[in-house]
Amino acid sequence: MLCARLWRGLRPQCTVWKQNQSHRVAARLDLSGIYPPIATPFTAKEDVDYQKLEENLQSYVRIPFKGLVVQGSNGEYPYLTDEERVDVVRAVRRSLPADKLLMAGSGCESTRATVQLSEKMAAAGADAVLVVTPCFYRGRMDGRALIRHFTKVADSSPVPVVLYSVPANTGLELPLDAVVQLSQHPNIVGLKDSGGDITRLGLIVHKTKAQDFQVLAGSAGFLMAAYCVGAVGGVCALANVLGRELCELQTLCVSGRWEEARVLQQRLIEPNAAVTRKLGVPALKQAMEWFGLHGGACRSPLQPVTEAEVQQLRRDFSSNGWL
Amino acid sequence: MLCARLWRGLRPQCTVWKQNQSHRVAARLDLSGIYPPIATPFTAKEDVDYQKLEENLQSYVRIPFKGLVVQGSNGEYPYLTDEERVDVVRAVRRSLPADKLLMAGSGCESTRATVQLSEKMAAAGADAVLVVTPCFYRGRMDGRALIRHFTKVADSSPVPVVLYSVPANTGLELPLDAVVQLSQHPNIVGLKDSGGDITRLGLIVHKTKAQDFQVLAGSAGFLMAAYCVGAVGGVCALANVLGRELCELQTLCVSGRWEEARVLQQRLIEPNAAVTRKLGVPALKQAMEWFGLHGGACRSPLQPVTEAEVQQLRRDFSSNGWL
Amino acid sequence: MLCARLWRGLRPQCTVWKQNQSHRVAARLDLSGIYPPIATPFTAKEDVDYQKLEENLQSYVRIPFKGLVVQGSNGEYPYLTDEERVDVVRAVRRSLPADKLLMAGSGCESTRATVQLSEKMAAAGADAVLVVTPCFYRGRMDGRALIRHFTKVADSSPVPVVLYSVPANTGLELPLDAVVQLSQHPNIVGLKDSGGDITRLGLIVHKTKAQDFQVLAGSAGFLMAAYCVGAVGGVCALANVLGRELCELQTLCVSGRWEEARVLQQRLIEPNAAVTRKLGVPALKQAMEWFGLHGGACRSPLQPVTEAEVQQLRRDFSSNGWL
Amino acid sequence: MLCARLWRGLRPQCTVWKQNQSHRVAARLDLSGIYPPIATPFTAKEDVDYQKLEENLQSYVRIPFKGLVVQGSNGEYPYLTDEERVDVVRAVRRSLPADKLLMAGSGCESTRATVQLSEKMAAAGADAVLVVTPCFYRGRMDGRALIRHFTKVADSSPVPVVLYSVPANTGLELPLDAVVQLSQHPNIVGLKDSGGDITRLGLIVHKTKAQDFQVLAGSAGFLMAAYCVGAVGGVCALANVLGRELCELQTLCVSGRWEEARVLQQRLIEPNAAVTRKLGVPALKQAMEWFGLHGGACRSPLQPVTEAEVQQLRRDFSSNGWL
Repeated sequence: MLCARLWRGLRPQCTVWKQNQSHRVAARLDLSGIYPPIATPFTAKEDVDYQKLEENLQSYVRIPFKGLVVQGSNGEYPYLTDEERVDVVRAVRRSLPADKLLMAGSGCESTRATVQLSEKMAAAGADAVLVVTPCFYRGRMDGRALIRHFTKVADSSPVPVVLYSVPANTGLELPLDAVVQLSQHPNIVGLKDSGGDITRLGLIVHKTKAQDFQVLAGSAGFLMAAYCVGAVGGVCALANVLGRELCELQTLCVSGRWEEARVLQQRLIEPNAAVTRKLGVPALKQAMEWFGLHGGACRSPLQPVTEAEVQQLRRDFSSNGWL
Repeated sequence: MLCARLWRGLRPQCTVWKQNQSHRVAARLDLSGIYPPIATPFTAKEDVDYQKLEENLQSYVRIPFKGLVVQGSNGEYPYLTDEERVDVVRAVRRSLPADKLLMAGSGCESTRATVQLSEKMAAAGADAVLVVTPCFYRGRMDGRALIRHFTKVADSSPVPVVLYSVPANTGLELPLDAVVQLSQHPNIVGLKDSGGDITRLGLIVHKTKAQDFQVLAGSAGFLMAAYCVGAVGGVCALANVLGRELCELQTLCVSGRWEEARVLQQRLIEPNAAVTRKLGVPALKQAMEWFGLHGGACRSPLQPVTEAEVQQLRRDFSSNGWL
Repeated sequence: MLCARLWRGLRPQCTVWKQNQSHRVAARLDLSGIYPPIATPFTAKEDVDYQKLEENLQSYVRIPFKGLVVQGSNGEYPYLTDEERVDVVRAVRRSLPADKLLMAGSGCESTRATVQLSEKMAAAGADAVLVVTPCFYRGRMDGRALIRHFTKVADSSPVPVVLYSVPANTGLELPLDAVVQLSQHPNIVGLKDSGGDITRLGLIVHKTKAQDFQVLAGSAGFLMAAYCVGAVGGVCALANVLGRELCELQTLCVSGRWEEARVLQQRLIEPNAAVTRKLGVPALKQAMEWFGLHGGACRSPLQPVTEAEVQQLRRDFSSNGWL
Repeated sequence: MLCARLWRGLRPQCTVWKQNQSHRVAARLDLSGIYPPIATPFTAKEDVDYQKLEENLQSYVRIPFKGLVVQGSNGEYPYLTDEERVDVVRAVRRSLPADKLLMAGSGCESTRATVQLSEKMAAAGADAVLVVTPCFYRGRMDGRALIRHFTKVADSSPVPVVLYSVPANTGLELPLDAVVQLSQHPNIVGLKDSGGDITRLGLIVHKTKAQDFQVLAGSAGFLMAAYCVGAVGGVCALANVLGRELCELQTLCVSGRWEEARVLQQRLIEPNAAVTRKLGVPALKQAMEWFGLHGGACRSPLQPVTEAEVQQLRRDFSSNGWL
């Protein structure tokens, strides 16, 4: 079943896309907006804590997110079994209002595993799948290999595919030429780019403008700049903690109130860096606790933040007026 | 069941190791020698080709290898399901003579998955498990996290653990201090190091000499130098193709015939580079075909070598007199 | 003589700055605007071609640049003797109208040489000096060392100092904390940042806002985004070729016409990449020839662009409508 | 004057080399042995301290070095003026016995400056020049550019040229193919390689064996391994401190006493790392003071080691029995 779900506020609707470019379906899934790539809370025994997850969702529903990303890098997906990955998506879908988009991470190292997991994610209720670049044999993951990988996945995925480039974790950037070529695939609707190279983002927007291809910033640190060069939204770890503020930043950018946006953006850079590249997922989970959400434990080998790191984390939030 | 299998030519023998350092079991599993990290042949449909695998094993049995590594990086293990990983080990064990050591890759990103897979590998007949550094959240994979990971795995593994550092694939080097501390664990018997930093290898040998810790070179390019600084063997992709020659190089090094060793070593550097960092697993599989073995297809997204790459590969073998 | 030249359109005016922070001089040198970091044309014998340089200056004077950077990286300054570096500045100053700012690169590896060259540059007519991070012993060039270096240089420089961070050439990024601390020095007025990390640029603006510290984008690829996050101008290699267009982009950004800015910015990314990180100074010089300027030869070991590179360069300009 | 000095223990002897390969001079300058790349002591005012330098030379003359390297990276050459660089060489030549080889660093960023400085070094008494890869425009320093650079330098140098690849400082490795091609130049006699990639060293020896090309290890950490794969000596920072021990290691390697060599080599790795990549030149100078030599101050921006670093440095020497 090859189909790209149209997005009109009604989740179950779906339609077959056409190979013929001239017959491209008019409306692609609209990705614009802010998404938290939600954390996966674990119990002390490192099992998925569905109760805490549910409570987080209750908090998030009051924030004007476009939707949620389930099992981006912040969801510790490499530590979940395939079954757990699907179960979490199913659980989130049950709680999530129908008008919120659910984007599920379905990337695996092999093409065949990614194809299978994408199908399961769609069956579990995902509106789109977010597919990370395979990376273990990165010396061989050139444009040719990656284009074939994503094309096969998109050919068979029941829901639209969003490309995902996150060099900090994968040691690999999806080459710009590959993005441009893949943007022509009718079932590939966008890219989450976490690399932070704003020149690249601007060029991707430029070279894919004929394709209605949607670029999402992969981090809150460069969200305003990404909007400035043509991105339509962001998948931001920090949205797990300061979601309302990021949605406000979105509003300011979209409505052209750049001076106000700049002031807000600047106060978000350090907290964002703290929960991403500086201290990572354990810090994100710690910060969530401070803001009335449940971070819970990490699964090993991720270790909790040390006492010194907690102090640094607190400083990065408090010095910007968030704590 | 915590036990470290003694190696005396009889596979089933095993004994419980003691926590008390002063009562350390006298004989650790002897790792010394050459191992091919065997490739996994696939059919055109990308299924494991057990028939071809079996035929490769029949060829390898005539070469004086110490044993085989099943599902090192050259076995495309990140592309196999956990079931496939165990099945391949079971199949190899059935064919492998009892006096050949079977080292099985059991590393996963999470500690719990690695613990479980190590147990399954032991049950499937592995004599030791080779555990790669988890790497996705590499920014948080410091010595502390890695020591806890490997300690938990070694605490519960029924067979001895060999550490595995392969920065080209993981973007992460197991820190030297972590290696030194882990070398004191009674169920951690050695390290496969594929980084090629000979200074580091020498220092590891130096700082672990009280522990009877065994260092294996992870590539044929620096095998002689590794022997020179105190390594006891090698796990070398090139052994899939030129296994007899690598065993001869081992003999020359162990017997102190360094001049002859140097001549042989030098002729192996380019073929080795070709099937590892230059052209990777697809080139290894292609070269195997030339030498009467079955490389078979790769699993996607790994692509076969291009025509230009085949020519380069051939040149790297022929200019050194191997083709 | 410690003084920071005030900038009020009259070049010769100058005043002593006070060490006492509370008595900081009201008006700092205003850096806002666009600067070409001018190329140094050489003759076929690799001598400085002052005739061609002069003709380039005649072209540049018709473009609303804020000023010129003489001996940034694009001026091949590492290939000039100290005498040549000063002579070129002197020559440019003679031709440059008094209301154009001349920023001269005076960075050397040692502090003492940088101090001496900064004095000579001021004497030769520079309004400010641009001081690159020393980098040869980059393992020891931590914040502490760099703060001392720049402080000593700024303490003694007769003209204001602009910090210069260009990791692509130096393999070293001036640490953010060092920038923040140095921004408090009364004779350090700004930073040229060529790294392109827009998150870092925004944070620098944020953390130095009490100091009236001025950030200049070091490349045209992220010029609009830099304005968006608070930069005041740009030193852009591409301004040697498309100077008028970059000044127009500046106008659009400063006047808040972001939609028009985005369209123009996007068309500049590929030509900019071509003359900077992709093909470097030789390509910049080639492109200058196409646009009625004199690039001239490079000094060895820089080689001219190959025929294949010329074609790629042409494509990057023509596909964006510039040729 | 194109000539390559023959080395037969009599310094002044010299002969013109022929362009014609078939008429290559029989005896090349023999580089085999150990060299300290001597430090340049400075006074508190950062001037060259010739008195201390002289006293160091008096100590070194009692050690069976093959010669000295003057103005390798450990001599802080990037911080000296060209005049100082030549003056130091002249001073060393005056004190150095005639049977000790003087290799002088003459590398500059531009080809013309390197040519000129090489001539001055020869005139000041250098027996050979050590020419580092230019690196500022490293994106353009491909094999083609580097081959032309070194060829021009070697064509005009009155004394033989030794190539110098030191990626830790330059961010650039002289490509293997360039080394192989340059090894055929009659006035290029060897390579100092500080990268530490033992596979590369072995391959260079292999591919240049027809040229009587001499490879020198650029660091003591891999000296034994380098001998093992075919190097003929070493230029080792640590020889400034533990020169006698390194000469002993050389003797053990050359005479095939590998077991003894290994024990000694292992004890040298940590002290070597401390005075090179870990703590650099300031630590080297500190350690020299402990061993009865004069390190003296560094020139700014190099800062002295901190108290914590001094303790770490001491530990790296004492834990291996050297203090």
